[in-house]
Amino acid sequence: MTFAPLQNDRFLKALNREAVDRTPVWMMRQAGRYLPEYRASREKAGSFMDLCQNAELACEVTLQPLERYPMDAAILFSDILTIPDAMGLGLYFETGEGPKFRKVVRTEADVAALPIPDAETDLGYVMKAVSTIRGALNGRVPLIGFSGSPWTLATYMVEGGSSKDFRHLKAMVYSQPELAHALLDKLAQSVTAYLNAQIRHGAQAVQIFDTWGGALSAEAYREFSLKYMQQIVDGLIRDHEGRKVPVILFTKNGGLWLETMADSGCDALGLDWTINIGEARRRVGDRVALQGNMDPAVLYASPRAIRAEVKRILDDFGDHPGHVFNLGHGITPQVDPAHAGVFIDAVQEFSQR
Amino acid sequence: MTFAPLQNDRFLKALNREAVDRTPVWMMRQAGRYLPEYRASREKAGSFMDLCQNAELACEVTLQPLERYPMDAAILFSDILTIPDAMGLGLYFETGEGPKFRKVVRTEADVAALPIPDAETDLGYVMKAVSTIRGALNGRVPLIGFSGSPWTLATYMVEGGSSKDFRHLKAMVYSQPELAHALLDKLAQSVTAYLNAQIRHGAQAVQIFDTWGGALSAEAYREFSLKYMQQIVDGLIRDHEGRKVPVILFTKNGGLWLETMADSGCDALGLDWTINIGEARRRVGDRVALQGNMDPAVLYASPRAIRAEVKRILDDFGDHPGHVFNLGHGITPQVDPAHAGVFIDAVQEFSQR
Repeated sequence: MTFAPLQNDRFLKALNREAVDRTPVWMMRQAGRYLPEYRASREKAGSFMDLCQNAELACEVTLQPLERYPMDAAILFSDILTIPDAMGLGLYFETGEGPKFRKVVRTEADVAALPIPDAETDLGYVMKAVSTIRGALNGRVPLIGFSGSPWTLATYMVEGGSSKDFRHLKAMVYSQPELAHALLDKLAQSVTAYLNAQIRHGAQAVQIFDTWGGALSAEAYREFSLKYMQQIVDGLIRDHEGRKVPVILFTKNGGLWLETMADSGCDALGLDWTINIGEARRRVGDRVALQGNMDPAVLYASPRAIRAEVKRILDDFGDHPGHVFNLGHGITPQVDPAHAGVFIDAVQEFSQR
Repeated sequence: MTFAPLQNDRFLKALNREAVDRTPVWMMRQAGRYLPEYRASREKAGSFMDLCQNAELACEVTLQPLERYPMDAAILFSDILTIPDAMGLGLYFETGEGPKFRKVVRTEADVAALPIPDAETDLGYVMKAVSTIRGALNGRVPLIGFSGSPWTLATYMVEGGSSKDFRHLKAMVYSQPELAHALLDKLAQSVTAYLNAQIRHGAQAVQIFDTWGGALSAEAYREFSLKYMQQIVDGLIRDHEGRKVPVILFTKNGGLWLETMADSGCDALGLDWTINIGEARRRVGDRVALQGNMDPAVLYASPRAIRAEVKRILDDFGDHPGHVFNLGHGITPQVDPAHAGVFIDAVQEFSQR
């Protein structure tokens, strides 16, 4: 496959800590329920997984935020639980509740029985979405691929869905650590193959979402979450189409552990809003770029307050290379799309060099 | 009121960073649903608030964990939302859901209309529980009083109950900061009076539970949560019955902010399990004692794993004064009471000096 040349490479340059004319910006979950046009596409598709599995519709919703706002990156529209679903666990969604699995993974036999999905065949619908979106972008902005982290995927697989205390997986971690390691190793192999396939099909950067690593102790985080993200980083295609493919690690509530995360060999760290971004930069030095980190709840505040918070974060980061502006977590469904626009515009206005 | 002399002062000594024969231990939510005898008392009382409002039954459940385990402290059995309830907001609980309020606080008029409760009269049932428990303890171990932090109370009052994103209160913080400050100041005054009344009625240490401060940005945490806990610390009775009354601040997910918390004038910081306790000690030096910090989910693991984790935490803290062992958050309802016993025993065995 060959694609049109990239017209806007601010995002990729910033991830490589190269100088840019202004700070690039995108929003986690930018193709999402806060947009009426997204809700219309979702309606057309049927279920949420129908939307993920239809390359044309997944492409349509991926491009929607770019039509509204001058974004510097697009992100593949998909679910973080495609891998466990491809392992045969039976992902389903019930209205008003989080994702659920028909089968749970709790015993040695359960882990042994899990296949490592073939990314090209078992997850072919994701690859088709990636190449369709990349083609439709036509070089406008880079396309980000993504996956859930092994730890985060394991929480849903072992608990059977969302959880508050992750009791079954944590019991496994402390009582049967070798079983937890066997599961996480299989997941790390699966994620590596999955992200490499996304890169081959057109993803120009990848992000690993470690949504639940922050629920671990510092020790357990290193051993059961970071270790497997490191294994993925080590196995990823890092150059493709004659360009570096940056890797972003995002552990929600991982602010205490930035130094060890930066040592993983990734190119950038995603930050939630609990850490001051200037302090984060001083802690990681020039080893990695930083992505973040406005509290998405600020988008419920007035345009004036949104602009002030954007300015505060830019000032705290300071005049250094290596900042990608983003929210500290996904944009939430009740946000007024006009407020998202105020946010994007403020980043561009205040970061002009 | 005069009470029997204190027989076990390990907990108070450790909070003052004095040498002790072994590390004192208690568990947040130690009087709780994991105990069958608690569930029986709760059944007898009727609703959860009926249990809080009946001094004899509140005393009964407070003492239950002490009958089972050799604990070094008792904590008042009550709810964190007694103050907003006494302000007239109408606290209620629906089965399987969190606490809710009939009235929410969102406008200037709402804030202006809020009374500062009289702790002795409006919250007399709490004071009666405190003195009843203190009498029944008969000097066995110290009694801890507590309150929710102003920020944490405000989240429930403004959102009307539990929340994932605190959208209304955060919108207020960013768009109408002066209104948020007016609300938080009223709450800080109320909490100060409430905790001082608890101390006068027999509480020998107090803990401020800032369950939701960790959902704020570093900047907003200082301005909207820590500032008001500081105001409370400044207004508390610090010596009573000829003894210092230690104050513990506990911000869940506050590991990034320990230095500023330690500067508040409190005696100890409660830690959740995401920070290594040795690292926390190095960061705060000898300014404060530390309380924590085992992941409560470890209690779902095997006795052997529980013992190993207790040992790891004791070793990480090291041989210094100023450690109170605890879980990093409340014990959860599904824990086997025998596993809680393994935890308590392991702390006592491994910390023997």
